[in-house]
Amino acid sequence: MFKKILIANRGEIAVRIIRACREMGIKTVAVYAEGDEEGLHVQLADESICIGPKASKDSYLNENSILSATILKEAEAIHPGFGFLSENSRFAKMCEECNIKFIGPTSENIRAMGDKSRAKQLMEAAGVPVVPGSKGLVKDEVEAVKIAKEIGYPVMIKASAGGGGKGIRIVHDENSLIREFAAAKKEAMISFKNDDMYMEKFIERPRHIEVQLLADEHGNTVYLGERECSVQRKNQKVLEEAPSAVVDEILRARMGRIAVEAAKSIGYVGVGTIEFLVDKNLDFYFMEMNTRIQVEHPVTEMVTGIDLIKEQIKVAAGNTLTFSQEDVELKGHSIECRINAENPMKNFMPCPGEITRLHIPGGNGIRLDSAVYQNYVIPHSYDSMVGKLIVHAKTRVEAINKMKSALSEFIIEGVETNIDLQLEILSNKKFVSGDFDTSFLASELGY
Amino acid sequence: MFKKILIANRGEIAVRIIRACREMGIKTVAVYAEGDEEGLHVQLADESICIGPKASKDSYLNENSILSATILKEAEAIHPGFGFLSENSRFAKMCEECNIKFIGPTSENIRAMGDKSRAKQLMEAAGVPVVPGSKGLVKDEVEAVKIAKEIGYPVMIKASAGGGGKGIRIVHDENSLIREFAAAKKEAMISFKNDDMYMEKFIERPRHIEVQLLADEHGNTVYLGERECSVQRKNQKVLEEAPSAVVDEILRARMGRIAVEAAKSIGYVGVGTIEFLVDKNLDFYFMEMNTRIQVEHPVTEMVTGIDLIKEQIKVAAGNTLTFSQEDVELKGHSIECRINAENPMKNFMPCPGEITRLHIPGGNGIRLDSAVYQNYVIPHSYDSMVGKLIVHAKTRVEAINKMKSALSEFIIEGVETNIDLQLEILSNKKFVSGDFDTSFLASELGY
Repeated sequence: MFKKILIANRGEIAVRIIRACREMGIKTVAVYAEGDEEGLHVQLADESICIGPKASKDSYLNENSILSATILKEAEAIHPGFGFLSENSRFAKMCEECNIKFIGPTSENIRAMGDKSRAKQLMEAAGVPVVPGSKGLVKDEVEAVKIAKEIGYPVMIKASAGGGGKGIRIVHDENSLIREFAAAKKEAMISFKNDDMYMEKFIERPRHIEVQLLADEHGNTVYLGERECSVQRKNQKVLEEAPSAVVDEILRARMGRIAVEAAKSIGYVGVGTIEFLVDKNLDFYFMEMNTRIQVEHPVTEMVTGIDLIKEQIKVAAGNTLTFSQEDVELKGHSIECRINAENPMKNFMPCPGEITRLHIPGGNGIRLDSAVYQNYVIPHSYDSMVGKLIVHAKTRVEAINKMKSALSEFIIEGVETNIDLQLEILSNKKFVSGDFDTSFLASELGY
Repeated sequence: MFKKILIANRGEIAVRIIRACREMGIKTVAVYAEGDEEGLHVQLADESICIGPKASKDSYLNENSILSATILKEAEAIHPGFGFLSENSRFAKMCEECNIKFIGPTSENIRAMGDKSRAKQLMEAAGVPVVPGSKGLVKDEVEAVKIAKEIGYPVMIKASAGGGGKGIRIVHDENSLIREFAAAKKEAMISFKNDDMYMEKFIERPRHIEVQLLADEHGNTVYLGERECSVQRKNQKVLEEAPSAVVDEILRARMGRIAVEAAKSIGYVGVGTIEFLVDKNLDFYFMEMNTRIQVEHPVTEMVTGIDLIKEQIKVAAGNTLTFSQEDVELKGHSIECRINAENPMKNFMPCPGEITRLHIPGGNGIRLDSAVYQNYVIPHSYDSMVGKLIVHAKTRVEAINKMKSALSEFIIEGVETNIDLQLEILSNKKFVSGDFDTSFLASELGY
């Protein structure tokens, strides 16, 4: 096992990793940007080192500085957490070349999954369902109509060079397709000087459901159930839960086995997540693979009893998994609410500043993953997450009630937060019924 | 189910009960003594009412005042928590007469188990092993020697009217017995003007292990595993864990079944605990039955996934248990450390006062049951418990490491605490090995 790990991150995920290391008897090195010395991660780590100025690009994203710190502090491994350098294949490669263990998959795995179209090809080759569409570019209306007949309406026409919603059309029948194909092509030419078009089946009101994977270097890969992440605002997850209200044992096993096969096909090692779009018929389609620990990993930990950070560190050190798929058992229901210092009434504007009063809910089945404390000043330079409140109970209804009770008890003064929004979600009938999709926050609550 | 419950307690157990009620949709009424308005239980409950002056005897022990408050606030039930009125059969009887549900067993159950010698008789009749001894009084040395031969040395000679260690002798052989019997008799006469003597087998270096029971009104009684409570100072538990390092599945089932039969034999309903002394051969003997929820109930909740307070409220409302013995499964290991505002260096003198700074450990497998917050002033009038830190991990070793890490992270400024003592216990080789008994704190650590 590693003797010392440098944590190339800050905030709650750095604290989460430091706590796991402490429990495993591994020494930790925290890194911090100028002005971030008061971070809890700095206070909890065995050692700490400044890696540059306040701006992330000069510090938490500063590859050379972090590598130098690792060498200077004689750490054997770097845990990148999530965000920052966690999915930077160049940095993973630099670690490999410096003989420092990057706690994550290989740089090649990261690169392959980071290129979204290559990832889709690799996954399709491994038998993972992908959203049906054109093989490459669509030259004209005639071909478009032919493809649409194959994959079924509605379809999405997309400009290859597209972005910001330009050159994209969703059409529900042949007439609209013929009309809109030409329009989208024209718009793409004006916007991007490139009118290459391709097509995909449009998944209506999809749910975002992802499968947690864990793989060692010795060919053992397990899935640890799914997470329901459909409560999103502008593709940012707001609330996550495990299991999903719509996934039964059969579907779970099918998604899980496919995800395991996909990971095995690329020789994946470490923790990883395959995100799926799930349509109203519960057909699922590969969206992307995240080659790192995720913000919402705690809900999986609560229902499986497996500590994902510890397991991630163990497999990075070359250990063999101590359990097999049959040993993985889901118990109860877990919900995570991301608590952000932001103002939902003012377009979710971040509200950094001093937390002048803090009362944290506690008790049975309540977990808080956070890096804040009373009188801590949330800096302007980084994300606005205050922490993650996680509950675990026997049933989904009990978990919802527990979360509502805990949120009502949470006191954070000095900064605005999204606690009231979370309470609104948890009291919404559609949410409670389990019948919702990624449009929920916008269409149901108007956010 | 009850619509409104009055909680006749304060501190962390009142908060624990209020949280359970909130999650169950039950309204709560907190009671408080003058000067105790700042208690978290008052702030979290839906309503609150002052029940008298600061001294417990005038407020939290004031039966009439609490009953009046219950009637005034139109609560249907009283949850007594632990301590205070929780094992007061007269109060339970008063509740019964006022048609207010006392959340606990019947007043008759409480009375029977509160009378230690009657409890022993009832338990023996129900097939529970009790410490062997004389049936009633021992008239002279000749009878004493005869009994000692039957039950085996060492034996304890005890004055029937005894107390404070007077008139008690522990003897290891016949000669000492003959000599000490006379001496003890004489001492008893001088001290108590009563030289009635009885005898019991002396259990050497016993462990204190207790079985958690849960029974409904419909004849269903289950045991929820055991708790190891041998880390004690002057009969006060300091650290508890579940399961016990020395109890295997066979012993657990045996203790559990006997405890269930005992509870059934007296028609027990609610949560209850049978405390056993366990000797070096793992023979166990009835010590007493606690007819209430216990301080250390969370370790059982962590390993069983069963919320004892919610279940207690449900069976009090007449509900049938929704699970059977076969459904009870123990997972992992849990430890609870009682965090007290006291100074182990000054004979554990309580140190009430203002908590000027508070940082609570969090993260995976960490639970805090507490009623304090930063700037809260711990009053002088009540017990000195700040809270209970509870961890849950896969194995005992992992739980120990998790607790050490969490305790190291705990910051409480303004009052002295026993956190360092807890760390000392957790680092002690005997404790870690699992080879310890109720003498551990005194003999091993010198407390």
